[in-house]
Amino acid sequence: MIKDLNISDIFLRIRQRKPVIHHLTNWVTIYDCANIVKCIGGSPIMAHAPEEVAEIVNIASSLVLNIGTLTIDFVESMKIATRAANLRKIPVILDPCGAGATGLRDRKSLELIDFFYVDIIKGNSSEIAKIAGEDVKTKGVDAGEVKKDILSIARKLAKNKQCTVVVTGKEDIVSDGNSTYIVKNGDEMLTHVVGTGCMVNSVIGTFAAVENNLCFAAVSALVCFGISAEIAAKISKGPGSFKTNLFDCLFSLDSKTIEEMVNIEKINE
Amino acid sequence: MIKDLNISDIFLRIRQRKPVIHHLTNWVTIYDCANIVKCIGGSPIMAHAPEEVAEIVNIASSLVLNIGTLTIDFVESMKIATRAANLRKIPVILDPCGAGATGLRDRKSLELIDFFYVDIIKGNSSEIAKIAGEDVKTKGVDAGEVKKDILSIARKLAKNKQCTVVVTGKEDIVSDGNSTYIVKNGDEMLTHVVGTGCMVNSVIGTFAAVENNLCFAAVSALVCFGISAEIAAKISKGPGSFKTNLFDCLFSLDSKTIEEMVNIEKINE
Amino acid sequence: MIKDLNISDIFLRIRQRKPVIHHLTNWVTIYDCANIVKCIGGSPIMAHAPEEVAEIVNIASSLVLNIGTLTIDFVESMKIATRAANLRKIPVILDPCGAGATGLRDRKSLELIDFFYVDIIKGNSSEIAKIAGEDVKTKGVDAGEVKKDILSIARKLAKNKQCTVVVTGKEDIVSDGNSTYIVKNGDEMLTHVVGTGCMVNSVIGTFAAVENNLCFAAVSALVCFGISAEIAAKISKGPGSFKTNLFDCLFSLDSKTIEEMVNIEKINE
Repeated sequence: MIKDLNISDIFLRIRQRKPVIHHLTNWVTIYDCANIVKCIGGSPIMAHAPEEVAEIVNIASSLVLNIGTLTIDFVESMKIATRAANLRKIPVILDPCGAGATGLRDRKSLELIDFFYVDIIKGNSSEIAKIAGEDVKTKGVDAGEVKKDILSIARKLAKNKQCTVVVTGKEDIVSDGNSTYIVKNGDEMLTHVVGTGCMVNSVIGTFAAVENNLCFAAVSALVCFGISAEIAAKISKGPGSFKTNLFDCLFSLDSKTIEEMVNIEKINE
Repeated sequence: MIKDLNISDIFLRIRQRKPVIHHLTNWVTIYDCANIVKCIGGSPIMAHAPEEVAEIVNIASSLVLNIGTLTIDFVESMKIATRAANLRKIPVILDPCGAGATGLRDRKSLELIDFFYVDIIKGNSSEIAKIAGEDVKTKGVDAGEVKKDILSIARKLAKNKQCTVVVTGKEDIVSDGNSTYIVKNGDEMLTHVVGTGCMVNSVIGTFAAVENNLCFAAVSALVCFGISAEIAAKISKGPGSFKTNLFDCLFSLDSKTIEEMVNIEKINE
Repeated sequence: MIKDLNISDIFLRIRQRKPVIHHLTNWVTIYDCANIVKCIGGSPIMAHAPEEVAEIVNIASSLVLNIGTLTIDFVESMKIATRAANLRKIPVILDPCGAGATGLRDRKSLELIDFFYVDIIKGNSSEIAKIAGEDVKTKGVDAGEVKKDILSIARKLAKNKQCTVVVTGKEDIVSDGNSTYIVKNGDEMLTHVVGTGCMVNSVIGTFAAVENNLCFAAVSALVCFGISAEIAAKISKGPGSFKTNLFDCLFSLDSKTIEEMVNIEKINE
């Protein structure tokens, strides 16, 4: 569908290489983040002690950060890990979870983005808008109101920070400032389960561990996660069974299903 | 059944208003507490950094506390949040999880209750008895033995602390010292799954976010949670499937089912 | 099958005595560790504040340690708890999770093992080999490569440290240096779910709480967990439903099933 993008190929690479994905993430969804990485064939490791994070980065293929339950000490460990990841040139994926809700979250997100190099920033519309310096009315960790066009905000943020920006929502946006994609896979049921946004971040981190084109990595991750959600929603009775089925479906996902169900669009600038 | 108590109406208000429920809770069941709030239509946020808890309280409609994996620092954050919640007059719900098991838990629970205002105290019989100053033989976080009549202990505690007291058990007790209710909904399977007590605390916090009569809020929360458990138990093969079904059932709960299955009693003084 | 070993008897003792199992464990799988203990009839308590761990040990029948998300402070609490457990002579079970991945993990595991008494050390092959001082190429928290024969490494480690060593893998090894057993129950699906190794550690801790022969306790735990996994795998579509079914199956496990499916071997020295 999109030139040079072979989603199945990237997906299969994960199962072959079993990349180690280092997380410094929040305490609410930490299990699901680890489990979703395992489901697609990666090897998750969650470690935050300042004495060991750089050493863990040395065996990892990507670094996944999420500030959902941040403390100042915890972000200091993130900085040590990010510096190590930047030196090793492995991708760093940040979810500025709850940016817009408190000054601490905004400040710490920007410290990570401005003082280090973050390869992919992933958030809902209000989180991305806040990071981009826009006026936002937030509602905690759920998406709040954004006054301006989120697509142009994402594109501009990607250009300014020279990174890839992912905005999750009814349709997901992926942009590196030059190329911009819309991913239409997914299901409304994802909004009724805590942690699906965090899991997406981990899935993107896992795809980025095996694919250098980070737009392609993010688009592929969103497509595979979204397709699994669509299949799972059809056989579920509510958010409990949906989550169980989501793990089953992602584990069983194959190339044929990806090719049949992929629903993405490239935006012409 | 009980004058002026319309459970369905309170329940539907949650789905309409989507209140932000701020938690400082334990690390064991933090995910389930967030997910159960989302299931009934609320917007959970878990945040404990002392630098941001007061700011989070400012966007929240209730504050849920649980000392299950307390540390001294963590309780200090709880105090900052509780002070902010008291100033904003939003309800504070406390689960003194494991009170009776250690001096630290007893002391810290009482610091929260005595130095600040806690609107609802929720515990099993031994936790509530301990908080009330009674002699208790505890067994960790599971309910232990209580020598005296727990109903009169609950009523007296509510009167002394001018709050609402909830005692969970085979039948649940809700009392504000003046009015006392027994909730008979629920299922024995709840005792075989870790975290159902913590989830109840979060559900009560969510109902309290949209209903000023805190006895009504607590009774309604226990009824809706209990009915969902009854339905879930019927279609489950054990604690694993029960928990999955509990989320599905609470998500799908409707007014008709509530009215048909509600099982409560008002105690005459 | 093995003289004097009555697995069903040990299993039923848990349901009768409902032992309190004190955990200081990692934040990733803490819920599942608590829930699996509850599933088999124990009463889990997770507590790590240095001010209360010794007091919790006083009501516990075993102490379960897991360094999966260790920090220096957290290990200090483990030491206080272990000292208390040693004084009370209740069994201490350690999972040196991720040993081999960082110097911190190796060092802290050995501090616990060398300065205190650990009754059971449980790990995958690379973790046990690392603790035993062997050359290991690790892959984070998943099992890495071990160059020498793991059976003789386990036996030697057990002898040196005068403890019971459990090595999990396709077949599990249990040795106290004198007697060595192979447990062949289990299913490959266990490798696709995060936390099954941590859960095994908790299950061993629960069996050790009611059985003084720690080899028998560990073998029985692995058999019961492994049989439940075999049954669960047959009725599951992937890792999501497998995990749900695993809890259901362990909860419903009975003596007849244990006797029919037990698959163990005693190694002659």
